Amino acid sequence: MIRRVPELTAEAARAVVDAAVDRAGRMGVPVAVAVVDRAGELLAFLRMDGAPLLSVGVAQDKAWTVTAFGRPTRWWTELFAAQPELRALSAGRRLMPVPGGWPIEVDGAVAGAVGVSGGSAEQDEQIAREAAAVVSGRGAS
Amino acid sequence: MIRRVPELTAEAARAVVDAAVDRAGRMGVPVAVAVVDRAGELLAFLRMDGAPLLSVGVAQDKAWTVTAFGRPTRWWTELFAAQPELRALSAGRRLMPVPGGWPIEVDGAVAGAVGVSGGSAEQDEQIAREAAAVVSGRGAS
Amino acid sequence: MIRRVPELTAEAARAVVDAAVDRAGRMGVPVAVAVVDRAGELLAFLRMDGAPLLSVGVAQDKAWTVTAFGRPTRWWTELFAAQPELRALSAGRRLMPVPGGWPIEVDGAVAGAVGVSGGSAEQDEQIAREAAAVVSGRGAS
Amino acid sequence: MIRRVPELTAEAARAVVDAAVDRAGRMGVPVAVAVVDRAGELLAFLRMDGAPLLSVGVAQDKAWTVTAFGRPTRWWTELFAAQPELRALSAGRRLMPVPGGWPIEVDGAVAGAVGVSGGSAEQDEQIAREAAAVVSGRGAS
Repeated sequence: MIRRVPELTAEAARAVVDAAVDRAGRMGVPVAVAVVDRAGELLAFLRMDGAPLLSVGVAQDKAWTVTAFGRPTRWWTELFAAQPELRALSAGRRLMPVPGGWPIEVDGAVAGAVGVSGGSAEQDEQIAREAAAVVSGRGAS
Repeated sequence: MIRRVPELTAEAARAVVDAAVDRAGRMGVPVAVAVVDRAGELLAFLRMDGAPLLSVGVAQDKAWTVTAFGRPTRWWTELFAAQPELRALSAGRRLMPVPGGWPIEVDGAVAGAVGVSGGSAEQDEQIAREAAAVVSGRGAS
Repeated sequence: MIRRVPELTAEAARAVVDAAVDRAGRMGVPVAVAVVDRAGELLAFLRMDGAPLLSVGVAQDKAWTVTAFGRPTRWWTELFAAQPELRALSAGRRLMPVPGGWPIEVDGAVAGAVGVSGGSAEQDEQIAREAAAVVSGRGAS
Repeated sequence: MIRRVPELTAEAARAVVDAAVDRAGRMGVPVAVAVVDRAGELLAFLRMDGAPLLSVGVAQDKAWTVTAFGRPTRWWTELFAAQPELRALSAGRRLMPVPGGWPIEVDGAVAGAVGVSGGSAEQDEQIAREAAAVVSGRGAS
């Protein structure tokens, strides 16, 4: 009646933040990076020098959005473009249907997510996807 | 690990409000004017006789919006027109994508912002831009 | 009309988080640590393995509280004990009158703050105070 | 079926802010000052250099509280001390039962209020009371 789920450690969360900051630095794009657990609660965060204040909240909302439905935030961007009547799903919630949030998957399950904000939608997503890959796919020990 | 950034004094904030009120008065447009610090927190405010009640909050939100991303509010007007799917960025935030908010820049950094509301979008922006110029560009002492 | 104030870099914020995590680890107390800028906005955050979920928000609120009034959170604990009628100041705000928030001071000014939550009030404060000392007192470059 | 009520002009609101800032400056206490109209909506505001961030909101809430019931905020301090069960009146509202908010009365009616925050409760109230006196008691023209 009990199952086991993968859970990110602080060490893993930090490794994802480090990877995102390193990637963003090489792109010359100052961003805010948030890593959340499978319930969307904050595990690790860093705002790079020069990242916009707005990104502090948006990065966290992108990460939350991923864990709320198990999909990259881009999935919502495309859904709402195709079916605008569904936008009501985001009202009063933290749902952020903008690219830049990516799942951290372990053993086929979403163990958490990373949200990136500060660059263009494409830059944010690229950084998030590459940062998530540092942990994603690793088997739980 | 520490850097120094320019900060507006109460005297500077007040000079911007005065300039905005003077300009609006000559245009015959009663407005509300808000000046915020670089974190978007209120420094100075004045509502002219006859300005709409709605403008009390909108002027403050315009100023906040500028400091949240470092751009005039018109930048958001144009972004959201070009990419409507990004409007979600403003949900649950004070993001006000309407012209009338302008940065106050010192030494190339955004030290604060002024938000104006009560006239047309073009009038509000003209007043804000001219008022910001009273302080913008001045070197920090 | 402009003055210059010290601002924490991401590097400084991270050094404070590292110091807090290191100290908490040696005490055997899993905590959440938040570092904010002088306006109370999040710069860096880490939740240690085993830290309570409640601490995610409380650590951030403690840090915010410090920058909102420039005093360690303990100052509020003692004020509210002495003058219970002032507790209304915290209503509807993030004011967290519990020890564990400590200012990061540079050149005699509050440049930011660290908030720690997860241990006892005394443990949280000791960790925060020692972590802040890693940066406090350094002159701005 | 219509009556006339006194209304503060922007000029009057500004005169009250000026008087408060002048008085606080001579006391050496940096404060935030808010003047609101009879409905509690913001008319004029100034944050002095060195005033705490917390005071930005508290000054406005004190002014609002005065117009909400037509009494100095101290009236609420004393009421809640005598009848703690009435504190529920403030829940979820901006009611700020701390000295420092004072009515601006014209022709026997509350035409607005001034809220001051940043010093001790006694200092805030003294500044507010003296600032209100600049306009209070003047007949409407």
